[in-house]
Formats: sequence, structure tokens, C-alpha cells
Amino acid sequence: MVDTWLDEKTSNKIVMSSRIRLARNIEGLPFPHMLQSNEALESLADSVSETFSDYKTLDMRAFNILDKALMVEEFLISPRFLKQGVRLILSEDKHASIMIGEEDHIRIQVVDTSKTLEELYKTASDIDDALEKNVEYAFDTNYGFKTACPTNVGTGLRASVMLHLPALSKNRRIKRVMDALTRMGYTLRGIYGEGSVPLGEMYQLSNQVTLGVDEHTILENLEDIKNQIVAEEEKTRQWFYHNRALTVRDSVFRSYGLLTYAQKMSLEEAAEHLSNIKYGVDMEMLEVENFQFQKWMCVIQHAFIRKRIEDQNLEYTSLEEAENRERAILIKELLGGNE
Amino acid sequence: MVDTWLDEKTSNKIVMSSRIRLARNIEGLPFPHMLQSNEALESLADSVSETFSDYKTLDMRAFNILDKALMVEEFLISPRFLKQGVRLILSEDKHASIMIGEEDHIRIQVVDTSKTLEELYKTASDIDDALEKNVEYAFDTNYGFKTACPTNVGTGLRASVMLHLPALSKNRRIKRVMDALTRMGYTLRGIYGEGSVPLGEMYQLSNQVTLGVDEHTILENLEDIKNQIVAEEEKTRQWFYHNRALTVRDSVFRSYGLLTYAQKMSLEEAAEHLSNIKYGVDMEMLEVENFQFQKWMCVIQHAFIRKRIEDQNLEYTSLEEAENRERAILIKELLGGNE
Repeated sequence: MVDTWLDEKTSNKIVMSSRIRLARNIEGLPFPHMLQSNEALESLADSVSETFSDYKTLDMRAFNILDKALMVEEFLISPRFLKQGVRLILSEDKHASIMIGEEDHIRIQVVDTSKTLEELYKTASDIDDALEKNVEYAFDTNYGFKTACPTNVGTGLRASVMLHLPALSKNRRIKRVMDALTRMGYTLRGIYGEGSVPLGEMYQLSNQVTLGVDEHTILENLEDIKNQIVAEEEKTRQWFYHNRALTVRDSVFRSYGLLTYAQKMSLEEAAEHLSNIKYGVDMEMLEVENFQFQKWMCVIQHAFIRKRIEDQNLEYTSLEEAENRERAILIKELLGGNE
Repeated sequence: MVDTWLDEKTSNKIVMSSRIRLARNIEGLPFPHMLQSNEALESLADSVSETFSDYKTLDMRAFNILDKALMVEEFLISPRFLKQGVRLILSEDKHASIMIGEEDHIRIQVVDTSKTLEELYKTASDIDDALEKNVEYAFDTNYGFKTACPTNVGTGLRASVMLHLPALSKNRRIKRVMDALTRMGYTLRGIYGEGSVPLGEMYQLSNQVTLGVDEHTILENLEDIKNQIVAEEEKTRQWFYHNRALTVRDSVFRSYGLLTYAQKMSLEEAAEHLSNIKYGVDMEMLEVENFQFQKWMCVIQHAFIRKRIEDQNLEYTSLEEAENRERAILIKELLGGNE
């Protein structure tokens, strides 16, 4: 159903996936937001496609808005790329991609559910090296890579990990964790990045500082922070397990009951219940056949549901109501058609 | 499980049951709250028991508080009778009872899920006549029967019907209906009578005026009012059915899901969901095997659940939590052991 790197069975707990992103720009070419036309970016894309001949090149103009929204929900492109992206050059397994015409000329992204940040950085770095053979990057010997937004100047590296933090969310410590991280130069935010609201107790942890530290230090520090958050989440899960067993069990099973029987459901509510079930599965309170948290979290999103409504030519008076109804139907299908 | 007149399968819609109550007092004997000892009431009870030799006589002192609370929940005695009742003289089918030492010396009660108020009044009247052969009632030729509380003076008759009003409750018109009824000399209140909070969208409609109108007029008027409320409820159900079908269906199935999967549940919440299911069953949205709304509403009450906890010698730190857990378990049993 989902045509993305998530389309694989994983049973990760807490750390759901990791991602490396490198921001690069071409020397002498104005940043994308300053360009009058896409010509220069298209010819850049052509050259990149040539370098990565085993990758697939997708012309973003060939997609309608719904298809592009789907790609955002699949984590293939960024919300910003949906609006202004020119070309997406995508590895066959969809784990590596090069966005041409995001905020910067080039954005290299490598993502995986099980590999470490260092492993992903190695892949991104290889892509970076291959690109550099054919293009001249905008680079300053004092500062490093030049980027459209000053927050990326230097390494142009953003490393992030997707964390599922139900226990920290439920006891409200997540807010304190978030504040502490901000003071330390990290962010913990929604899974669709900047400006996105946390859904299903999933958070994206990433570095904010890209300047004045080398890449490996960035990765090491983020790894450290991640391990601390994971330990905190695990400790809190144990506390709940020993002190609030019935309450947690109740909440998990209620979510299962609602997902099984509700006739309409908003995205926010569905995400909340799926998160509860994931928590319950992780804590071995219940078993759900073929449960794929991240994939399901993906397919309940707005564009996915709208695509289903479109594909079935469903009639409706209120799109929101139709979406909520269709989401409930989909969830029942995923859960194995219990009624 | 329930040892009451409710222990029969009924599939009533809206009008769940009807009840007639007659308040009587003995000439020359002070009202119960003025009595120094129970002696006079006990000898009255002896005489009543003799008259109704096929009835069962229960000495209220023989029951502990939990057993008496159970009898209240089964609608066999009133909350006031729990505190100060002397003897309960009960017909074999439990539809007719004589409480000795409630607010008045004698309270005759006849209750049924399918009979009309007139039919029930006929039975109560026969009991009344039989009693009058052996005792002299306190009676004033101007006012009628004398009672401990002036609100019962005259006929001493209180007629009531138990109504299930989910649609009127959901669209909040119930409050307006209640206010209008009060102005007309009727009350619509919780199922356990005076001071009780409505549970599970069930209401007890009864006359307040007992003086200056004859019995048949009281019954006719109440019948009229009842029919108007029933018509209003039916109209509102139809409105929801035609205008909010998905919302109603969603709420009904969510309740089913929660009752099936929750691991603990308060009385108020359980009553709310059972009411939703009853509504869904009435509207033919879902089928529930052996669903007995009134009986189930009874067995989820506090004393019933506490009895279960006591019978199983369950250990607990918080009685409330133990009750909520046990209630969830019972409901799953009732629903047929889905898990």
C-alpha cells in the first residue's frame, strides 16, 4: 500500500527510524528562492540524474497536489519541497534521495529504520562525494558550506531520529524534555518536521547547531542525547508498569476497542489510539497481528485517506466527515476486519 | 443473577416499566418518624403478613447494609426503607410489595415492565382493600388519606413510569422537558427516585399532585404526559436517524467497543455506554445477544459490584478501583466474553 522505505516490517521500540540530511548549494547560482526560473535547477537535476543513473528521477511538476502530499506523508519529500520542489532523484530502495530545489539547490537525504546515524552519514557522504565530482559547491573556508538559511551553514548536516515516546507523553514530562533540549541546541518536534504538531506520541529529535562542530561530533552528541531520552522513556514505562498497570492496560485496550468499532475517526484520535496500541504491544500487554505502527501512522494521514476516497469515487457532502469515516474503515481493515 | 421483578426478558423501547405506590397510615398511631420503638410497626407487619399469607415476609434487621443496598438497586425497596424499614412483605413474583415502616406505616408498591398504570393500580387497590379489612386507615373526609409528608396527602398515590430517553438526552432537550413538567406538577428524575441523578439516560416520570384529584384522573393525566414524552423521544430519534446517522452509529459502536475492551469502568460511564447500546439495538443498528438493558443497568450498580468483590474475596487497595475493574469484567461476561 505504502510505496516508501517504511514498507518493511519492523518491530522497533522507541527509536523508530533515523535520518541524515545534507544541504548543498552550487557556487555562483542564487539560492532557490532568488531564482527567476527553474531552468538552472533543471539542468542541475539533469547532471545529478546522470551521476546517479541507477536512481529514479521524478519531475515534481508531473504530480498533482494530492500525489505530492502523499509523498510528504511517506517521508519521501519535505512539506516545503511539495510546494517548490523541482526534481526528486530517488534510490531504488527509497532509502536515499536527492531533492533538487528545496530550500537549498541540493538536499541529500538518507533514512532507515534500523541503521545508525553514522552508517546513514556514510551513505550520505558517499552521495555527496559523487555529486562534488561534477558540480562546484558554494563553500566558505571559514564557515563551511553556504546555505539558504543561516541555521544550516557550516556542515549543512541535520541528523534526526524518530522517537515514539508514549510514557513521557503520558506523564507530561515531554514538555520539560523539549525545553531542556532547546536550551542545548536540539529540537524535539512533530514527525513532519518544522512546524508540525506531534501525532501519535511520535517525535523527531534533531540537531540545531550545524556550525563550528564537525560532522562526527554532531552525530555522537545526538546519539548521546537520543540514548538519554530512550533511557528516560524506558524508565517511565517501567514506572507505569509497576505503579499504574491497570490504568495503562485499560487505556491500551480502550484504544483497541475504539479502533475496532468506531465508525469515524479524526487523524489526531486515530494516531493517539495507534500509539497506545504500539505501547501495549511493546509492553507485551496485547498482540496485534501484522501490526506496523509507522506504516499505519502513515496511511491514516489526510492525503492517503483522500486518495482512497478519490479512488473509490465516494460521494460526500463534508470532506472531513468522509475522511473520518474512510479512516475508520481503513483501520478496521488493517486490524483484520473485526466488527 | 438479579433476584427481582426485572429478571425477565423484555424488549421494551422507551417505556421500560411502570409503578404504582400507595401511602397508608394507621389511625391513632404516630407516623414512623415519631415512633419511639418499632413494636407497633412489627405487630402491624404481623397482621399484614397474616392477610397476605402467600407473600414472603422479610425482616429488614436480618440484612446487612450491602444486602439492603442490593434490594434498593433491584427496585425492591426505596433508599429510605434501607435506612429505617422494618419489614418487607413481598409477593412471590416480586411485582407487588408492602413496605412496613417507610416514611408512612404502609407503602404498597406494584411494578411491572409491561402492564399499564391502570392495571397496576387495580392490583394495588386490591391489596389496599384487603389490608383495610384488618386495619383502620388514618383518613380525613375532607382531605383523604393522611400521610407523614404533606405531598402525599389525599390519594396517597404516586404513579411513575421509567423512561429511556437517549435522543432527548443527547440533544439536550431533556432539561427543557424537565422544567416544563415541574411547572405542570410532574417530575422527571433519576431512576432511584428523589435526589437520584439520572443514569444511562433513564428517567422516572411521576405525578407530584396527590390532593384534589381522583386516582383515575391522576393515572390518565400521567398516561397523557408519558405519551407526549414518548412521541417527542421518537421524533427526536427519527431526526437523528435521518440527519446524524453516522454520528449516532459511531457513538453506539464506540460504546460497544469500550464495553468490550475497557479494563475498568465507572458506573456513570458504563451506564452511558449501555444506554448507547440500548439505543443502537432499538434503532436496529446492532444486535447484542441476550441484551437486557434494565437488568444490566441494575447489576453494574455499586452494591452489586461490591457483592461480587466480597463473594470472591478479592483483595484491593482502593475500593473504587476494584469496583471499576470488577465492573469491566462483569460487563465483558454479560457481552459474552469477547476479549
